[in-house]
Amino acid sequence: MFRDKIKILDCTIRDGGLINNHDFDLRFVREVYKAVSAAGVDYIELGYKNSDKIFSRDEYGAWKFCQDDDIKKVVEGIESKTKISVMGDIGRVDMDKVLPAKDSPIDMIRTAAYVKDIDKAITHTNQFSDLGYETTINIMAISRDQGPELDEALHQIEAECQANVIYIVDSFGHLYQESVENLVKRFKTILKTKEVGFHGHNNLQLAFSNTIEAIIHDANYLDATVYGIGRAAGNCTLELLLGFLKNPKFDLRPILELISKEFLPLRNQIEWGYIIPYALAGIFNEHPKAAMALRNGDKKDNYREFYENLISPEVE
Amino acid sequence: MFRDKIKILDCTIRDGGLINNHDFDLRFVREVYKAVSAAGVDYIELGYKNSDKIFSRDEYGAWKFCQDDDIKKVVEGIESKTKISVMGDIGRVDMDKVLPAKDSPIDMIRTAAYVKDIDKAITHTNQFSDLGYETTINIMAISRDQGPELDEALHQIEAECQANVIYIVDSFGHLYQESVENLVKRFKTILKTKEVGFHGHNNLQLAFSNTIEAIIHDANYLDATVYGIGRAAGNCTLELLLGFLKNPKFDLRPILELISKEFLPLRNQIEWGYIIPYALAGIFNEHPKAAMALRNGDKKDNYREFYENLISPEVE
Repeated sequence: MFRDKIKILDCTIRDGGLINNHDFDLRFVREVYKAVSAAGVDYIELGYKNSDKIFSRDEYGAWKFCQDDDIKKVVEGIESKTKISVMGDIGRVDMDKVLPAKDSPIDMIRTAAYVKDIDKAITHTNQFSDLGYETTINIMAISRDQGPELDEALHQIEAECQANVIYIVDSFGHLYQESVENLVKRFKTILKTKEVGFHGHNNLQLAFSNTIEAIIHDANYLDATVYGIGRAAGNCTLELLLGFLKNPKFDLRPILELISKEFLPLRNQIEWGYIIPYALAGIFNEHPKAAMALRNGDKKDNYREFYENLISPEVE
Repeated sequence: MFRDKIKILDCTIRDGGLINNHDFDLRFVREVYKAVSAAGVDYIELGYKNSDKIFSRDEYGAWKFCQDDDIKKVVEGIESKTKISVMGDIGRVDMDKVLPAKDSPIDMIRTAAYVKDIDKAITHTNQFSDLGYETTINIMAISRDQGPELDEALHQIEAECQANVIYIVDSFGHLYQESVENLVKRFKTILKTKEVGFHGHNNLQLAFSNTIEAIIHDANYLDATVYGIGRAAGNCTLELLLGFLKNPKFDLRPILELISKEFLPLRNQIEWGYIIPYALAGIFNEHPKAAMALRNGDKKDNYREFYENLISPEVE
C-alpha cells in the first residue's frame, strides 16, 4: 500500500531554530537526530548555512551556521541512514567554505526563495548541485504568488535548474486542500523532470491535511517537525505524518518517546502551535510577523483588537 | 461566493459538557449563547435531554437534562436568531415531558446512534418530528461502520425517517479527506430528500479540513465548537470555520472576544485538544476511552508505552 518514492524530511531543528535563534544545545540536537534516525526518516534538516560574517555568533546558536564540524559532532557515534540537509540562503553563504559533497557530512542543500527571486535561486542552487549535493528550491509564500509569474518561474526552473525537488511552501499557512491540489497539479505539469515537495504551516490546523492532499496528488517530498515545532503556528507534525504513511520502514516509537522526554518540557519554555493571532494571520494570508509581535507584547491575548487591526489596516 | 444553504451548529456547551459533567454555570452558558448569536451562527446545542430518573442531578449539571425552564434562563433578554438544539438519547428521554415544539424554547432535537441501532433511532426521531421539532440522526463512529450495513441504514432512513438532516459523525477522529469525500457522496446518493451534516473530531488535527471536505461535497450542516472544546481531542473550531466561510452574515469578532475572556482561562482548568494519546487513538481508529484513562493517571505522558499497548492489546 505504501509509495516507496515518498521521502520525509524532518526540519525540527531548522524550523524550530526560528523560535530560539538556532540555539539548541548539542545534547538536544543529538537526541532529535537519534530518534529521527531510529524512526527511519529520510532526511533531517539542522539549520542554515549562513556566513558568520553576516550574522553574529553572539546572537545566534550553531544552527544558524551549520558548519561541517558542528554537524559531525551531532552524527558521531549514532547509527543512521538519515541524510543531512541544511538551508543555504541566497547571498548569505560563504561559498569558499562549502566543500564538495563527498567531503562534507551534508547531503542536501535547500534554497528558499520567493517567486520574484527565482533567477538568483537557480544560480545559487546550481552551485551546490555542481558540488555534488542534492538540492531543492523551496518556493516561499506561494499563497501570495499564484498568478502567471509562478508558471513562468516553474518553466525557468525546469529548463535551467539542477535541483532535484521543487517545494511548495505555504509560509503563511493559508492554503487548504483545493488550493494545494491546484498547486501540486500545476507543479507536476510543468516540472516534468523533478519531484514536487510540500512544506505546510499550521495556522489553520491544515498543515497535516494539506500534506496528505499533496501526497494524494503525487508530491513525494514532505516536510514535518516533531510535535509540530516551528515559527508561529508551527508545522505539519512528524508523528501524524508517520502514523498516516503505511511504509513499514517508519517506526513511530522513537518519536513518541522524544516528545515525552524533550518536547513537552520545551513547549513550556517556548511557544508554537494553534494560537488565535496566528490563525487570523493564516485566514488573512498575512506573514505571521504582526501576530508574533502581539504575542511578545502585553496585549498578547486581545484577539478581537488584533482582528480589528487586520481588517482595518488604516486605523492607527 | 457563499452557499446560503450552509448551516453552522455550535455544540460548545453540549460537547464541552462531556468533559465537565455538563456543569457549566448559567453565566458562562449565557456568554456563549450571546457570542454565538452575535456571530450569526444558525444553531446552538446546549446538551442532552436526559431524564433525571436515569442520571443523578448530584452527579451532573443542568445541561445533562436541558429542561425547558433552564433553557429559558439562558436565552432570556438576549437578542438572537440562533435556534436551540439539544440531543435526545434513545431510551433516556422522558417523552411525557417533551412539549410540542411550538410551546418549547427548543427548535431541534438530534439523535446520536450507531448504525446497528438505526431502527430505534428512526422511531425515536420520528416522535420528535411529530411534535414539530427539526430533527437529525447523527450516525456515530462511522469510521468503524463503512460496510454494506451503512447503505442499508441510509436506505431505511430515507424511506422511514422524518429527520431533516443526517450527520456523518467521526467519533474516533479517524477520517481524512478521501474517506470524508467517499462518505458524503454515499450519503448524498442515497439520502435524496435530506441534508447531510458533518461532525468531526480533532484527534489527527483533521476536524477542520474534514469539515471543509464535507462542504466541498455538499454537506450543508456543520458542527463546530468554540476553540475546539470537546471530549478528548475536541472538535472542529468554530472560529476557523467561520473564518473560512464567506457568508457575510457571520461575524468572527464576538467569538474571538469569547475565547480571550472565557476559553483561555477554561483551558487552564480542563483539558482538550492535540494531545498525543488522542492522536494515537485516532490513528488506530479507537474510541478515546483508553487515552482518557491514561490522561487521568500517573503515566499520562508516557506515550511510547501507551502506543505499545495499542499495537499489542494482548499484553497485560
